[in-house]
Amino acid sequence: MTAHACELDDLLAAAKRAAGELAPTSGDERDVALAAIADALETHAEAICAANERDVRIATERGMSTGLIDRLRLDHDRVGAIAQAVREIVALPDPVGEVTQGRRLANGLEATQVRVPLGVVAMIYEARPNVTVDAAALALKAGNAVILRGGSAAINSNAALVDVMRSALAETNLPVDAISTVDPWGREGAAALMRARGYVDVLIPRGGAGLIEECVRSSQVPVIETGTGNCHLYVDASADLDDACAIAVNAKTQRVGVCNAIETLLLDRATAQTAWEAIVPALAERGVKFHVGPQAREILNLAGYEWVDGDETDFATEYLSLDIAVEVVDGVDEAIGHIRRYSSGHTEAIVAQDATAISRFVRGVDAAALAVNASTRFTDGGQLGLGAEIGISTQKLHARGPMGVHALTSTTWILTGTGHIRP
Amino acid sequence: MTAHACELDDLLAAAKRAAGELAPTSGDERDVALAAIADALETHAEAICAANERDVRIATERGMSTGLIDRLRLDHDRVGAIAQAVREIVALPDPVGEVTQGRRLANGLEATQVRVPLGVVAMIYEARPNVTVDAAALALKAGNAVILRGGSAAINSNAALVDVMRSALAETNLPVDAISTVDPWGREGAAALMRARGYVDVLIPRGGAGLIEECVRSSQVPVIETGTGNCHLYVDASADLDDACAIAVNAKTQRVGVCNAIETLLLDRATAQTAWEAIVPALAERGVKFHVGPQAREILNLAGYEWVDGDETDFATEYLSLDIAVEVVDGVDEAIGHIRRYSSGHTEAIVAQDATAISRFVRGVDAAALAVNASTRFTDGGQLGLGAEIGISTQKLHARGPMGVHALTSTTWILTGTGHIRP
Repeated sequence: MTAHACELDDLLAAAKRAAGELAPTSGDERDVALAAIADALETHAEAICAANERDVRIATERGMSTGLIDRLRLDHDRVGAIAQAVREIVALPDPVGEVTQGRRLANGLEATQVRVPLGVVAMIYEARPNVTVDAAALALKAGNAVILRGGSAAINSNAALVDVMRSALAETNLPVDAISTVDPWGREGAAALMRARGYVDVLIPRGGAGLIEECVRSSQVPVIETGTGNCHLYVDASADLDDACAIAVNAKTQRVGVCNAIETLLLDRATAQTAWEAIVPALAERGVKFHVGPQAREILNLAGYEWVDGDETDFATEYLSLDIAVEVVDGVDEAIGHIRRYSSGHTEAIVAQDATAISRFVRGVDAAALAVNASTRFTDGGQLGLGAEIGISTQKLHARGPMGVHALTSTTWILTGTGHIRP
Repeated sequence: MTAHACELDDLLAAAKRAAGELAPTSGDERDVALAAIADALETHAEAICAANERDVRIATERGMSTGLIDRLRLDHDRVGAIAQAVREIVALPDPVGEVTQGRRLANGLEATQVRVPLGVVAMIYEARPNVTVDAAALALKAGNAVILRGGSAAINSNAALVDVMRSALAETNLPVDAISTVDPWGREGAAALMRARGYVDVLIPRGGAGLIEECVRSSQVPVIETGTGNCHLYVDASADLDDACAIAVNAKTQRVGVCNAIETLLLDRATAQTAWEAIVPALAERGVKFHVGPQAREILNLAGYEWVDGDETDFATEYLSLDIAVEVVDGVDEAIGHIRRYSSGHTEAIVAQDATAISRFVRGVDAAALAVNASTRFTDGGQLGLGAEIGISTQKLHARGPMGVHALTSTTWILTGTGHIRP
């Protein structure tokens, strides 16, 4: 009996009930259920791939780009990798019940703050079937019920994945409604999640800037913004230019289309031409195209590279491609000013040997991560040792940067007395 | 030169600039400024009280209740107490720069997560002039700029207080626009704060349920809900009834009209009549009126007490008065069900000696604080040793329960390498 609720309201109420039933479960119970989900995904890989094939066929007919088709496509190996990712989540320590602070007060009252599940986590995301399982597994690990709304191009894949996960839950002690999807309701499902005050404890949109903006503007439930990355690399006059070149190449070209790639290169005026000559050939060799700002056009000798005029629009653009804006700034303070103006608050990097410049940059720039003589590509839950991530928060409340299972918890104070009253 | 901006947009931009200037300041610099504010409040107590007298006169003419007038009124002693509260904030440790986690990764990259200011904190609150100074001082302590919107009945008092604080800042290294008010714009000022995406990092409404609901529904900036307290006291069959009585009296009558007072008394069916007889005389003696639910009316002998019929509306009401709803439930599980249905997620209490009942309650109820054999009145930043609080969060994201200076910070990852790139 894993049939979904027939009405949106019933589905929301069922998820809330499931959250209530999940709250008192032990980490072991949840890990057993997650392991069962991992096994079931492999057992039913055939059916999952068949459903995915329908999505891929329709997407191809509709002219979806090869890059997006690749993110949509599943095969037996990929289903195996998804199951393996769930097993890695099983191996993480249980965040629920962790004591975050506590003390015995002078009057003998014991005050302990512990981690508890958030409750119901809603997730709206693009057509990437692996996110369906990642999000459900991370939410469940932290004791939450999850309501999913995936990209419509993945509707058959997601239906199959959710069905397999719910069937696996049905064989355990956990409520089946710990995992559900509003995909059958389409856009109305997403809208219902945004209105679901009292049912949804947090809404996490993961996708393009437009989706995130719509959630922030329309939602009446708390939203965690994720993943918009207009990241900068500032090369100070004191920089080691070999480091600068290696970091620029890694941060721009290792993987195109990720939120922790750089989109603008800022060169300190004092050494702008030297830095340009040291860094740019390696980028150009990899097919990078330069959008050169007004200051840079005045100062740099650009001959021999593919470049176009860059302006404020370029500075504000997250290219997610082999394009990069280039501008010259007058030292670290002007770099900070430029970044404060255009940054999306994801990751900002400085290459410098001068300790004062580094200190000014670290204290003056406002972002989820600041990379000093290191690539912006390290802003990643796996890289930082936080385990799998449900997204990278670019807002300042609750969670900032890579969000692992801890970001899917809240806390509660447990005040234990022996008849204590307040004097 | 402490004149405010003439246009709302300019004021928002000035606050954002001030936040940028505050971010790199040291805790010492901020403490010096806070001490100067405390001194200035005492020096200018005369002018502050004169402005307040105008507010009190107008409020009296308009028929404001004596309770609210009392919260509005300032005199020399109260201004002294407000200044003293600022000095207590000076004495708190600086939350900014605190390392919250960190490690050296296998590749040698040093990853450190540190506390940073949130940026611009906006606060909308009722006509209580002390909140004007508390909120500004707590925000500044954590390195934030604050934009205030106080209840219109306190407009003259708040103008005087903000002017004194800004004048004090003008004599320090900190930006004057670290503290500003949109009071001159009235309701339009509040609306502007709710729309101020990119300028306001968090909006904290503090006041009645209506204000908080409006902010949650209308705001495009992140909101932290505070202070709605529909708190319950459940008396289990295993309870020590002397404890139950003392806690009920303390939690209901010590201070009426506070969010951590109880509004409903739930009695375990097995011992309902005994518990009623043990607890209720002391409450009745203090003038408490009972709104008795259907189950309780069937079971209890109510003769001799002032009571009325209670129903679902009563269960959902935060009385903030000497009224209390009473209902009988069938053991701890039904108590949990009742509380999950009506709780505002503030503080929920159980009196019990049975460890299993306590454990079920603590794991099954979802609230910012759970009081076990203790009064709900302990949910308070000062009582829990967190220092002064800017409000009590009843939501689950970012901060839950009493919010001290730590709740006014975010974090950032500082990734320090020596040319590290991601393999």
